[in-house]
Amino acid sequence: LHHGLRGAAATRDQSFVRRLAQKLGFGFRTDRIDLSQLAQSRKLSLETAGRLARHNFFADCARAERASILLLAHHADDQVETILHNFLRGSGRRGLGGMREKSAWTHQGRKLEIWRPLLNWSREELRSYLRQNNQSWREDASNSSLDPIRNRFRHRIIPTIEKSLGRQISAPLLRLDQILREEDDWMDSLLPPRPAELPIQELNLLPLPLQRRQLLYWLQEQLPRLLGENKAPTIGWHEVETARTLLSRTSPAKINLPGHCHLRRRQGLLFLSPPKAAP
Amino acid sequence: LHHGLRGAAATRDQSFVRRLAQKLGFGFRTDRIDLSQLAQSRKLSLETAGRLARHNFFADCARAERASILLLAHHADDQVETILHNFLRGSGRRGLGGMREKSAWTHQGRKLEIWRPLLNWSREELRSYLRQNNQSWREDASNSSLDPIRNRFRHRIIPTIEKSLGRQISAPLLRLDQILREEDDWMDSLLPPRPAELPIQELNLLPLPLQRRQLLYWLQEQLPRLLGENKAPTIGWHEVETARTLLSRTSPAKINLPGHCHLRRRQGLLFLSPPKAAP
Repeated sequence: LHHGLRGAAATRDQSFVRRLAQKLGFGFRTDRIDLSQLAQSRKLSLETAGRLARHNFFADCARAERASILLLAHHADDQVETILHNFLRGSGRRGLGGMREKSAWTHQGRKLEIWRPLLNWSREELRSYLRQNNQSWREDASNSSLDPIRNRFRHRIIPTIEKSLGRQISAPLLRLDQILREEDDWMDSLLPPRPAELPIQELNLLPLPLQRRQLLYWLQEQLPRLLGENKAPTIGWHEVETARTLLSRTSPAKINLPGHCHLRRRQGLLFLSPPKAAP
Repeated sequence: LHHGLRGAAATRDQSFVRRLAQKLGFGFRTDRIDLSQLAQSRKLSLETAGRLARHNFFADCARAERASILLLAHHADDQVETILHNFLRGSGRRGLGGMREKSAWTHQGRKLEIWRPLLNWSREELRSYLRQNNQSWREDASNSSLDPIRNRFRHRIIPTIEKSLGRQISAPLLRLDQILREEDDWMDSLLPPRPAELPIQELNLLPLPLQRRQLLYWLQEQLPRLLGENKAPTIGWHEVETARTLLSRTSPAKINLPGHCHLRRRQGLLFLSPPKAAP
């Protein structure tokens, strides 16, 4: 816990959830971790350390409970922040969409399904439901401290946009997300399988948007296998465009990728080779 | 001209452009119009009246000069505003993209090509180019008065986002626009032809994203033919989803569309029927 205020709030959050779980007859697990220390020792930002700690905790709970499904409480306002954030990062088509109601997650070799059953209800709809049912709740004080970017969207960017335009942006953004997601799923369904060595002729026969998509996914799958999950670099537009230069037979047969590894072309196949050991 | 300040600035803009055209040996055409009056008589907002007046002027010039290409001076910052605005309207995939370097435009039965040769340069790059070439310029005072929405993006929304995130958003948004546009063009290339009566079986064989796209374009093409260009309603997600209900044989064979016309299903075809004359 990286500052005192959050510490006190966290203690109250914890007792609130413990009592609620008891009342409902559910199990309860809790953990505390020194995020500053984790961040320092792993050379991570506080946000990334927080995310890692949460993920480790979820994976541990799932293992202990033999659970295969993890329910997360993201709601429609979280979703709008995610969509807008992804859009402003310009993170290509796939990164553009928001969170999904159902997705899969692999952490430390363990597969979990992630469900977000509250994703279609806004913060205000959820509060109103709780009030109608005489159920008290806690606002998560960590929102402001653990994720400063999300906080800026919530408290500055989105209010400025809505005030300037004189309307709410959530409905159109959620609808757009749905359209893009269905288009994404359909385009993904058209992609051929992706073996470790990727046939260049097949790539060259794909229309440009599918070719980019195929290379993006292939790099995102292969790099963690080569370098380890925690060391794989982020792959985006730039790396995909660099990779595409290898598709022509007249270009050099090797290019550098982030993480000191190489992408090579040999006998009509694309493959990755690991960083050389230091001499 | 709807207020005095703009009037004085407009006079100076006009003489600046006239002198520049003379110096470069280009023709020069000018027109003045009372926008408040146009807006009142046509029951339009000032912005819409301004757009209509500009379009009429461009079309008149093109006719008088026998020109088939119209050059517009939109630059990369205009493009970023357009992309962000379209995104926040959630206007579906097609509406999401920004302006194109080359497009076609039909106004009062006259076809014009629209080129935007400055679209890849930012406002600051253009100013810097002009400074290097000792060429003075005028800032368009009408930006703030004629298009209040664009103005809010320029002066409030985009600065707030960039300050909150601590970075500029133009590069990622322009790149994302390019990716989306290429995907759009490719998806459009997969659509079958669209006759006035649309075969339902063909629609039902299309994957959902293409089916929506096909219906959207078809409605956008057919409604102006039925109702006249100025009276055709805006077609979006909601109308497309409504139209899709007709694709099942068990649904009613007629639905209402905006503009008091009807979409009907008969003998495996979709077609539009005009509003009935008032009884």
